[in-house]
Amino acid sequence: MNVSILTIGEEILIGQVIDTNSAWMGRTLNMHGARVVGIHSVGDDHDAIQRGLSLALAEAEVVLLTGGLGPTKDDITKKALAEFFGAPTIFHQPTYERIVRIFQRLGRPTSEAHWLQAFLPANALLLPNKMGTAPGMWFDWRGKIIVSMPGVPYEMQYLMEREVLPRLHQRYPGRPIAHRTLLTAGEGESTIATHIAAFEAALPPHIRLAYLPNLGQVRLRLSGSDDDAEALNALLDQKKEELRALIPELVYGYDDDQLEAALGRTLKARGLTIGTAESCTGGYVAHRITAIAGASDYFLGSIVAYDNAVKRQLLGVKAETLEQHGAVSRETVLEMVEGARRALGVDVALAISGIAGPGGGTPEKPVGTIWMAASDARRYAARKLQAGNDRLKNIEYAGVHALNFTRLFLTDML
Amino acid sequence: MNVSILTIGEEILIGQVIDTNSAWMGRTLNMHGARVVGIHSVGDDHDAIQRGLSLALAEAEVVLLTGGLGPTKDDITKKALAEFFGAPTIFHQPTYERIVRIFQRLGRPTSEAHWLQAFLPANALLLPNKMGTAPGMWFDWRGKIIVSMPGVPYEMQYLMEREVLPRLHQRYPGRPIAHRTLLTAGEGESTIATHIAAFEAALPPHIRLAYLPNLGQVRLRLSGSDDDAEALNALLDQKKEELRALIPELVYGYDDDQLEAALGRTLKARGLTIGTAESCTGGYVAHRITAIAGASDYFLGSIVAYDNAVKRQLLGVKAETLEQHGAVSRETVLEMVEGARRALGVDVALAISGIAGPGGGTPEKPVGTIWMAASDARRYAARKLQAGNDRLKNIEYAGVHALNFTRLFLTDML
Repeated sequence: MNVSILTIGEEILIGQVIDTNSAWMGRTLNMHGARVVGIHSVGDDHDAIQRGLSLALAEAEVVLLTGGLGPTKDDITKKALAEFFGAPTIFHQPTYERIVRIFQRLGRPTSEAHWLQAFLPANALLLPNKMGTAPGMWFDWRGKIIVSMPGVPYEMQYLMEREVLPRLHQRYPGRPIAHRTLLTAGEGESTIATHIAAFEAALPPHIRLAYLPNLGQVRLRLSGSDDDAEALNALLDQKKEELRALIPELVYGYDDDQLEAALGRTLKARGLTIGTAESCTGGYVAHRITAIAGASDYFLGSIVAYDNAVKRQLLGVKAETLEQHGAVSRETVLEMVEGARRALGVDVALAISGIAGPGGGTPEKPVGTIWMAASDARRYAARKLQAGNDRLKNIEYAGVHALNFTRLFLTDML
Repeated sequence: MNVSILTIGEEILIGQVIDTNSAWMGRTLNMHGARVVGIHSVGDDHDAIQRGLSLALAEAEVVLLTGGLGPTKDDITKKALAEFFGAPTIFHQPTYERIVRIFQRLGRPTSEAHWLQAFLPANALLLPNKMGTAPGMWFDWRGKIIVSMPGVPYEMQYLMEREVLPRLHQRYPGRPIAHRTLLTAGEGESTIATHIAAFEAALPPHIRLAYLPNLGQVRLRLSGSDDDAEALNALLDQKKEELRALIPELVYGYDDDQLEAALGRTLKARGLTIGTAESCTGGYVAHRITAIAGASDYFLGSIVAYDNAVKRQLLGVKAETLEQHGAVSRETVLEMVEGARRALGVDVALAISGIAGPGGGTPEKPVGTIWMAASDARRYAARKLQAGNDRLKNIEYAGVHALNFTRLFLTDML
């Protein structure tokens, strides 16, 4: 199945927004065995949308549109679509009622714009959108499929996963494709490549391995295609296990798992509670842990000790330690982690202190220097990390490493 | 001048790389008064490149290509270009000598791939690329301009700034375009639309208004085009101020500003320190505040009190309050905010407690119920918010509203 992606919106053309939707769609479609042959962005005016539709339809049998739907006036996609298909727009009562209900629940008034939002092309099959007010629209037109979705990323992703991909699969069954993704943390792409070179070289030709690196984590994706789906799945399961056995301490999960979810499962299985003491990460690690549903089963709280006074008063870090070794030191993170365990009343604590930048670096402790420690009642561990120069990346990198460090600490792999 | 951007590379289509080049080019061209009418990505095969060129040339007088040049690609782009123009490829001695010199300096050997890299379409005007081995190529063809550049971002940017933009300016002196973006928080797209309907209806035809919504925030972009740049800028400044005056409490900044940076500026200007007490947001608000460089000037720390025991012990919330009113209540957030101010030693504190979901909801307090409070030595304020059903969205939505709530509290707009 060939797919063309069409993004509608002036904000992409003037570079105010980076088109991450198309990348997500490309990645997802690719995993489902579809071939994306083109990605196009056009402005949100009538002619541009019609031009975009024509060129997308000329190259593919499926066209996926995002953007240009929503309650405000800069929304002309629906009209352009209706005209393109030679269909009228008609008022869709259930869509209007859903919008009214959503706004009633939020205690907000609806306006004429919402009423207009319920006018939809008559030939559209509506795809329910639980994440927002604008439904997706599916058009079956001259043997081709055109789908229009809102541009808000989580709305588009919801519609793709729940409505669009299952329908496309039914329509274009294709040759079975399957994937297994191993999620690793703690080492870079090239180090992993060295460890698994022999495994990679020995893979059969219909199984491919892709490295998908991202800031402290590397996803290893095994993909295969075979007419015999059962044999393909059995082989992928075997290769996945072989690969895991080569780098057991790096693999924290599979497919859509998350490092913080893996950590949470380990804590829950052992009946342990956790808390953090954070300086440079400023609450980022606590945020990642609590992003997982059910985190309240094991996460009790955090002390974000950005200022040294807070490190002293709430975590009991000694003034001498801060003076002699500095806030970014093994000595300080060890006192922070003990202080957090005590103050929060948790079984296991994690502490992080570093220089996120851009200011604060010195020749001995440049920007990107990060210390972390973990402890429980029996033992502790500390580690130093050298990140880069970008503040936000350093925070994220430190967070990923801290989560992984704690996971390894708990599983006695440090 | 109308421009079409064409990106060549399979890695964009399969979503392995996000197309940031096109966003940079769009922004830069827009600031130079050029109008980007389309952005297209195609694969790096001969047919796809020719198809991409045709559709880009059909919509614009200038086509800017990136990608598909360099020693590891099999040079398909150059061959496809030469064929498209009906020109031969010829060996370009100076380009080859430059590549050899670069590699000699790096102490690395050259290979056949580098020799092939020096074969270029005969009708190309070469644009020297000091940042890499592949030169840019400028084609003057049937009254249109086609420029091919490498896909490495800093090489493309170097060529754009040093070679391409100056030449395009000479060729198309052009009509000035300008933008003003107002950043708002606290209300949705449709509510804002209602407030500014008369303003929007009265805009002159050469000024357009676009709504760019994103979870609790809406950017309002005024765009215009006029031969008289001075008059255009004056009019946009006037309209921007008119628009701000209609919704003064919603506008927190302009253009690339951030809500947390606006809050930081307010704190810094008043010489105040801040800290947070977070339950459902789990450190997310502290993370957003500390993502801003220089946050240590005003942010001292946070207590993430996920568990009620932490709320009691570190924030001094009374057991009776939790029992009688629950953790998600006006009474609890008011005790949390006072406790945070005391424990962290800050001038201003913010407290948040809510039900992020998916569990924990009741008929009286459904998932998405969020209470927040702010206080300083003189006064306090509390507010209830009803978010949706998605845990991560609820955390982000609560965070954005809490930052905005604190901004309004500090500027006496509550």
